[in-house]
Amino acid sequence: MSAADKKAAYEKFENVFKNDLIEQILGHAKKYKLPQEYQVWFEKSLRANTLGGKCNRGMSVPDSAAQLLDRELTQEEYFSTATLGWMIELLQAFFLVSDDIMDGSITRRGEPCWYLQPEVGMVAINDAFMLESAIYMILKQYFKAHPAYIDMVELFHETSFQTEIGQLCDLLTAPEGRSNLHNYSLEKYTHIVVYKTAYYSFYLPVALALHYNNIATPKNLKQSEDILILMGEYFQVQDDFLDCFYGTKDVIGKDGTDIQDNKCSWLVNQALKVATPEQRKVLEDHYGKKDDADVAKVKALYDELDLKGKYHAYEEKVVGELKDMIAKVDETEGLKKSVFETFLNKIYKRSK
Amino acid sequence: MSAADKKAAYEKFENVFKNDLIEQILGHAKKYKLPQEYQVWFEKSLRANTLGGKCNRGMSVPDSAAQLLDRELTQEEYFSTATLGWMIELLQAFFLVSDDIMDGSITRRGEPCWYLQPEVGMVAINDAFMLESAIYMILKQYFKAHPAYIDMVELFHETSFQTEIGQLCDLLTAPEGRSNLHNYSLEKYTHIVVYKTAYYSFYLPVALALHYNNIATPKNLKQSEDILILMGEYFQVQDDFLDCFYGTKDVIGKDGTDIQDNKCSWLVNQALKVATPEQRKVLEDHYGKKDDADVAKVKALYDELDLKGKYHAYEEKVVGELKDMIAKVDETEGLKKSVFETFLNKIYKRSK
Repeated sequence: MSAADKKAAYEKFENVFKNDLIEQILGHAKKYKLPQEYQVWFEKSLRANTLGGKCNRGMSVPDSAAQLLDRELTQEEYFSTATLGWMIELLQAFFLVSDDIMDGSITRRGEPCWYLQPEVGMVAINDAFMLESAIYMILKQYFKAHPAYIDMVELFHETSFQTEIGQLCDLLTAPEGRSNLHNYSLEKYTHIVVYKTAYYSFYLPVALALHYNNIATPKNLKQSEDILILMGEYFQVQDDFLDCFYGTKDVIGKDGTDIQDNKCSWLVNQALKVATPEQRKVLEDHYGKKDDADVAKVKALYDELDLKGKYHAYEEKVVGELKDMIAKVDETEGLKKSVFETFLNKIYKRSK
Repeated sequence: MSAADKKAAYEKFENVFKNDLIEQILGHAKKYKLPQEYQVWFEKSLRANTLGGKCNRGMSVPDSAAQLLDRELTQEEYFSTATLGWMIELLQAFFLVSDDIMDGSITRRGEPCWYLQPEVGMVAINDAFMLESAIYMILKQYFKAHPAYIDMVELFHETSFQTEIGQLCDLLTAPEGRSNLHNYSLEKYTHIVVYKTAYYSFYLPVALALHYNNIATPKNLKQSEDILILMGEYFQVQDDFLDCFYGTKDVIGKDGTDIQDNKCSWLVNQALKVATPEQRKVLEDHYGKKDDADVAKVKALYDELDLKGKYHAYEEKVVGELKDMIAKVDETEGLKKSVFETFLNKIYKRSK
């Protein structure tokens, strides 16, 4: 896809929210007689927290639906599946607004985090709830008559809980501002990655596309889950790798700070797994410190332990497994291998 | 009802959560492989934030269901309706945990607020989400086959959004730690009371009982809403009155601090409505201050404006209206006047 095509696809998706959904959501606040001056607040929160991201998750609902049908979507089908995609973006907005408070983050998408913007503060918590509520408003409004309506409602509930479970695991394993290496493990790392990210980012878009097309059979859902959760895990491992080894603003759009931030990343868990007592001491002394000299010591240890090599070996292995699973996909109930191939192509050997 | 009967009814209700629901909810966390040590955290949050309240809202689901059937509930019916009642208690827990953070509150039910307890902090936000998620888990688990399942799911969504809308109005009208009297009005007061409290506390229990009994016709829901929202408004006005005029630990279980806390209460709004410029200045100078002398000046003004008398006139008027509405209830579709009479009897002339 050319850069111009990508831009057009993005704008088409964005316009569904800007031109339609936002008015519908605000209509519900009006119905409940929210004073006009506070409707402005709600609209500002909706725009600031939902627009401006890459929309990879949301856009993959119409993409997947088209691949399942093996043809271009009609205008109506596009609108409906993009609307489902925007519900994922709303779910993500709900989580990001609150995660930023819990993590004490400073910026999000180049702006101060919502809770740090003038006048907002802890009202952001209620704003997050309202973003979540918007999901179910538009789901009811546009899909009440769809045969899979209740399945989609339950899917959002289940995915929300899975993400919360992953977030709890993350918060308790790596509490903000406290060293906690003794508590890290690859097992916990995998739990966090799978539940906090993979379900809502990888499984949810495809599951929604299956429901939309009325082919969400247990077999199709299970095959999708097995492949997409593994792919989501790979994606996050890759993210951690890029943060450390290619983490500059030019390459991944932000400076990598996982080491400074004491993150429970794939790399530190790999290091802890094989470290000698002396090497472990390096991590204990220097991991999670802001100073460049500390960061350099951690990176030197990562080189010593050949984590780059370990990562590349992991990548080849997991991509092999994924290709194998995709090749074996049973398409008899309407699932298509191409759905997963498209996801994998977007990820494999990406540099940002 | 004797004190012993009341205690027994409370314990019966509490046991549904303690002996059954809590295990079911934790089972979902186990299914998603939350590490054992973090399951302990979730259980602690569930117990600390859900148990120990008065359970008036939750218990009114089985009470209302019995009145609608005009007989005692079977054991199975009691368990089911008490389970619905616990979902209201979970919804309230979700809101109270987060409201306490947004309001900067210190204590809740005689204990430090959850977010102030050791080690908790902002993790409380995610804990609040998990309390909300628990609603939909047990709703699905116990009511998936009920004919009104999706209606009950939608009712919880709608009530959540109504409560959030009311909370937004409250937070923006009376921001924490800032004087904002120019922004107060009886219109905003009513909006806050109706949306933030009345829907989930008064309408929701009866609407759930109607759904449970399969008599949630549009007419029955509308009649219930009209009566219960007005009753919820009355309840909150009364709360504000008691806080000021009977607000001591002995009488209402807590010291009244609405004046000190700059609350957008019924009394200050009544005062602002009729105050001369000089009287208004008294409020501007002394409302929302912690000092006893300031509080005394506000109370003296309330006496001068005869707010006690205004309250009693309001009470007689609204109770007359409610009795009138109850007398006119159309019972042909299975609704019962006694449902509302019971609610009103619990409230009228209460002193705590």
